[in-house]
Amino acid sequence: MKLVFLCGGIGKRMFPLTEDKFMLKFLGKTLLEHQIEIAKKAGFKDFVIVGNPLNIENIKELCKDIDAKIEFGIQEEPTGMANALLSVKDMIKNDEIVLVNPNDVFDQSVYKKILTERKKSDYESYIVGYKVKSYFPGGYLELNENNELIKIHEKPGEGNEPSDIINIVVHLHRNPATLLEYLEKTRSERDDVYECSISKMVEDGHKIKVVKYEGFWCAIKYPWDIFDAVKYFLDNIKTPRISKRAKISKKAKIYGGVIIEDNVHVLENAVIRGPCYIGENTVIGNNVLIWNYTHVGANCVVGYSTEIKHSYIGDNCWFHMSYVGDSIISNNCSFGAGTITANFRFDEKPIKVTIKGMKSEIGLDKLGVIMGSNCKTGVNSCIMPGVKVGPNSILGPSVTLTKDLEPNKMIVVNEKSYIIKENEVTLSPEKKKSLMERLLRHGYGKKD
Amino acid sequence: MKLVFLCGGIGKRMFPLTEDKFMLKFLGKTLLEHQIEIAKKAGFKDFVIVGNPLNIENIKELCKDIDAKIEFGIQEEPTGMANALLSVKDMIKNDEIVLVNPNDVFDQSVYKKILTERKKSDYESYIVGYKVKSYFPGGYLELNENNELIKIHEKPGEGNEPSDIINIVVHLHRNPATLLEYLEKTRSERDDVYECSISKMVEDGHKIKVVKYEGFWCAIKYPWDIFDAVKYFLDNIKTPRISKRAKISKKAKIYGGVIIEDNVHVLENAVIRGPCYIGENTVIGNNVLIWNYTHVGANCVVGYSTEIKHSYIGDNCWFHMSYVGDSIISNNCSFGAGTITANFRFDEKPIKVTIKGMKSEIGLDKLGVIMGSNCKTGVNSCIMPGVKVGPNSILGPSVTLTKDLEPNKMIVVNEKSYIIKENEVTLSPEKKKSLMERLLRHGYGKKD
Amino acid sequence: MKLVFLCGGIGKRMFPLTEDKFMLKFLGKTLLEHQIEIAKKAGFKDFVIVGNPLNIENIKELCKDIDAKIEFGIQEEPTGMANALLSVKDMIKNDEIVLVNPNDVFDQSVYKKILTERKKSDYESYIVGYKVKSYFPGGYLELNENNELIKIHEKPGEGNEPSDIINIVVHLHRNPATLLEYLEKTRSERDDVYECSISKMVEDGHKIKVVKYEGFWCAIKYPWDIFDAVKYFLDNIKTPRISKRAKISKKAKIYGGVIIEDNVHVLENAVIRGPCYIGENTVIGNNVLIWNYTHVGANCVVGYSTEIKHSYIGDNCWFHMSYVGDSIISNNCSFGAGTITANFRFDEKPIKVTIKGMKSEIGLDKLGVIMGSNCKTGVNSCIMPGVKVGPNSILGPSVTLTKDLEPNKMIVVNEKSYIIKENEVTLSPEKKKSLMERLLRHGYGKKD
Repeated sequence: MKLVFLCGGIGKRMFPLTEDKFMLKFLGKTLLEHQIEIAKKAGFKDFVIVGNPLNIENIKELCKDIDAKIEFGIQEEPTGMANALLSVKDMIKNDEIVLVNPNDVFDQSVYKKILTERKKSDYESYIVGYKVKSYFPGGYLELNENNELIKIHEKPGEGNEPSDIINIVVHLHRNPATLLEYLEKTRSERDDVYECSISKMVEDGHKIKVVKYEGFWCAIKYPWDIFDAVKYFLDNIKTPRISKRAKISKKAKIYGGVIIEDNVHVLENAVIRGPCYIGENTVIGNNVLIWNYTHVGANCVVGYSTEIKHSYIGDNCWFHMSYVGDSIISNNCSFGAGTITANFRFDEKPIKVTIKGMKSEIGLDKLGVIMGSNCKTGVNSCIMPGVKVGPNSILGPSVTLTKDLEPNKMIVVNEKSYIIKENEVTLSPEKKKSLMERLLRHGYGKKD
Repeated sequence: MKLVFLCGGIGKRMFPLTEDKFMLKFLGKTLLEHQIEIAKKAGFKDFVIVGNPLNIENIKELCKDIDAKIEFGIQEEPTGMANALLSVKDMIKNDEIVLVNPNDVFDQSVYKKILTERKKSDYESYIVGYKVKSYFPGGYLELNENNELIKIHEKPGEGNEPSDIINIVVHLHRNPATLLEYLEKTRSERDDVYECSISKMVEDGHKIKVVKYEGFWCAIKYPWDIFDAVKYFLDNIKTPRISKRAKISKKAKIYGGVIIEDNVHVLENAVIRGPCYIGENTVIGNNVLIWNYTHVGANCVVGYSTEIKHSYIGDNCWFHMSYVGDSIISNNCSFGAGTITANFRFDEKPIKVTIKGMKSEIGLDKLGVIMGSNCKTGVNSCIMPGVKVGPNSILGPSVTLTKDLEPNKMIVVNEKSYIIKENEVTLSPEKKKSLMERLLRHGYGKKD
Repeated sequence: MKLVFLCGGIGKRMFPLTEDKFMLKFLGKTLLEHQIEIAKKAGFKDFVIVGNPLNIENIKELCKDIDAKIEFGIQEEPTGMANALLSVKDMIKNDEIVLVNPNDVFDQSVYKKILTERKKSDYESYIVGYKVKSYFPGGYLELNENNELIKIHEKPGEGNEPSDIINIVVHLHRNPATLLEYLEKTRSERDDVYECSISKMVEDGHKIKVVKYEGFWCAIKYPWDIFDAVKYFLDNIKTPRISKRAKISKKAKIYGGVIIEDNVHVLENAVIRGPCYIGENTVIGNNVLIWNYTHVGANCVVGYSTEIKHSYIGDNCWFHMSYVGDSIISNNCSFGAGTITANFRFDEKPIKVTIKGMKSEIGLDKLGVIMGSNCKTGVNSCIMPGVKVGPNSILGPSVTLTKDLEPNKMIVVNEKSYIIKENEVTLSPEKKKSLMERLLRHGYGKKD
């Protein structure tokens, strides 16, 4: 049995983050590595990974040290699952396959569920169904009382759902050849040829079982879905794990479910309040506070007097006297001292994010910045809630960014905003002496 | 004997704070509650409270759980004490009364003083006199060598004072009926009918004794008078009182005369250096410093890396990475991270405050902001010394407020102040490695 | 033998710092005092100090308590060493002399070296030569295989150096009278009469020995040369020296090679990571971090939550919630809360400094501000890397200073940068309750 990872799509909704969502790193590994790891634990040994021309080399590089049999395919156009599968027809036509969307985060128990079902029954295919509480823009499953699929309704629109069960792409096909035939002959104006083919198969009498899964699942469609994924990974930390090769000051304090990797430095009076993750070689500076499901990548410097709360930070990021709250920061970003991410509206209403040119609520009342890779902020700059910063862009010192900034831009304060005049203030040092005395009187320097 | 609290006036000079000064809370109770408490301790059991149509319901609400006999009256127009007393004529005409201005803060010993004097002599009335060191805009007492009143000179102007003894409204009248007659027939263009009546009584042969009082006294006329009141209340903390229901981190440090109420949280590396008061449920965050006669109300969050020095903070206020110095902040205000209250002039001269449109020195060389209730500040904003912010107003992010802001306003940075251009800076992560090495070389990560 | 200190020059390249470089204080003493001290240790007892009309009184004041025989001379015009020596002809003509430029920092071993050489040989003069690795804008020595001087090439320009040995002004002359004759008759268009005279003496057959010195040496020509001098002085701290009269909080932490002078206060959670120097009476406030060769003068207040890294701070300076990195701050400066010195370029290239109107690289990739005495910065202001601020100048609140500021100027934000409008945001305190609960849930207040 082969497990097929569909890595050829392009996550357009992820801007300004990476379009290859499976390349996001959690706990020091990419999501794809996690996927392979849990699949291996579930017993899979043969893998097919379908990438696209832009990402296939990165995928191969990533997989080169993984102990498993992996075949690589290329999907020339990112036009959906059907196209992906037809691109690797020869690799998959002769085996049972499990198709997996590696951009979803789920528990390995899903494999046990579908494989157990496969063992005890004899359907053409098995697809995983997941019960949702509110509308999700995906495929909804119409099914009968035996949990057999009737039809997949792709994005039916709120109110038109045939059930509350959605389609999760962990699909087992016993005869891929049959599936491939359907994929080849089905036509659709949308990129739902795969889903239409499945529905058509059912229409033609093939029996498909819906395997209900109730464990953790989240789809990374938008950048802020990363918060759920981080929560999942961090909640899975059962006992704190602090590397012996990490250097933790005696004056620092670490609580709760944390992973602190090799060569991390935690300096005086820093507090890390788990669930949190700190990647290897990262420095957590003096007086820093890190808490509430924060995930910091490798080789970062979280400098003096910085607070990071409920945020996802990539690798190689630097902060200094900053506040980062409810934010997602990609690799290689640097924050100048005094940079603040505002994460809450004055009117305390839900944060709005610009999606396809429209301001939309996304269900969060706290959200900071979403920043692409290789960005920098100047000292004393700030960014308003829910603003996106494109990769390779710079905020100058003292800038307040209120709208999304495109990639490769620099925003600076207009120098006309300042006036230089003669200094008519008489400056004298005398006053300081009495101020110092007053300051010492109010307890400075009294015994501990 | 009835004690009459005059709560019907309107504290016009208190803008942007509450006009009902007796509603200001100190140590978790309103000033009025404190007044009733100390009057009860002095032996009073019957109270009359004269409010106005706007505040009478709040006063009744406040008093509903107080164990004392309280009658409530309403003064329709806030035109002074005479009007107030005439409004409750029927409640007071048959008993000895003590009139008290509950907007003054004084020690309970004043009651002992006036009651003792009353016991051993037989004057028509007794009024409290207080020796001042500099001009005070109130009533000055002209008196003879037996400390008998000759006349009250209302606001005589500096240089025209008949003595250095001013009139404090703790007045005992043995026959209110007589006083009421005078109040009814006296006419004045100013709101000093009461004072004129007293003077007229003396003129007509009634004998009034001035009881000199030398304990603590302060009149809350202007917002900054609150600093003196706070000092009084905090200096009265004889032994530190930290609630057993407060949660204090072992890594926090609390010194000196403090009251820490129930359910307060004090987090790691916070320092509270009394005299200070922290109201119930308030959170004092990591690394916070609170010192020098600071009074923080209930349900506040003084977040990460904030310093509050010599300030009065109302209930339900939030701060984050802020500096609040020599400031008065009303209820329900929120400070964005990086908000700074400047409290000292470049030229080190006394702070000027705008009073009735005029910049006036008020005798303080350090003064921050005076902020009405329900205000917010954006991240990285700042406020210049002595500036007033009206209730329900907002400072946008990065705003520097240099003048008073009216109520219900919002001040924001003009977006034209920024220029967006192509980013021509080449950003590369390489440099960081050598910087990290340099940083570690300079002691980061060496043993404690 | 007399030691002659040449203090009459004017350090034009030192703007905005003091022109009298020998008046810079290190470890609590001026450089001149250090010079006299090490010369005394090397056995010198008789000194001649040549000042100029502007600085001679300060020099005398400085020397008044020094236990040594010191004669003072005045050089009327700052036109070089020849002029200086001729100004004190009568004081020096009859003794052997050692000429020293007190603006250079060097080890006392240089004296031992030159005196030893003098004892065992019989040259007319001895001058110290120092091997440099890269071009230095000073005098280069052309010498023969016996280390005898052939000629001094003053600022030959890169590529034209006759050797890699430069002339350091520690020069011993056995017969000053001869030297003075040459100085009187030599003419030059530049201020190198002294060097030309030396070359001429050699030409005429006088033999001059070059004494090679390999210990520490740095010339303070530009402000940033101070960093090297600080490094030298701090690296010389062999064992930490913390005054018994300093008050160090038990919660503070001090590491490495430090000198902490009398009456210094170090408050809770401050960290000083040597090599560092803290001058007398200085207060190091809560949570402050001082590290990486930082030198703080006397009577300073490094207030709450300030980081100072690799900087030289004069006397009587105040900081508050500031970041000072790789900066030089003269006496009597005050930083408003939130002031940040940027010290690194976005493009990570070497910092450029304006020298004689031209932007020039000076070989540093990190450099903050260079600030003259008596300056102030407003709250939330910031200064770009390598910017110079002239004495007596002020940055207003929220100003971003991107260019050098002349002396006696004030730069402020144009108030037109702000817009005031009606506040249409509905502000309500209700939300805070749920936020507080959320905050406490995420670990605030859990047990240490």
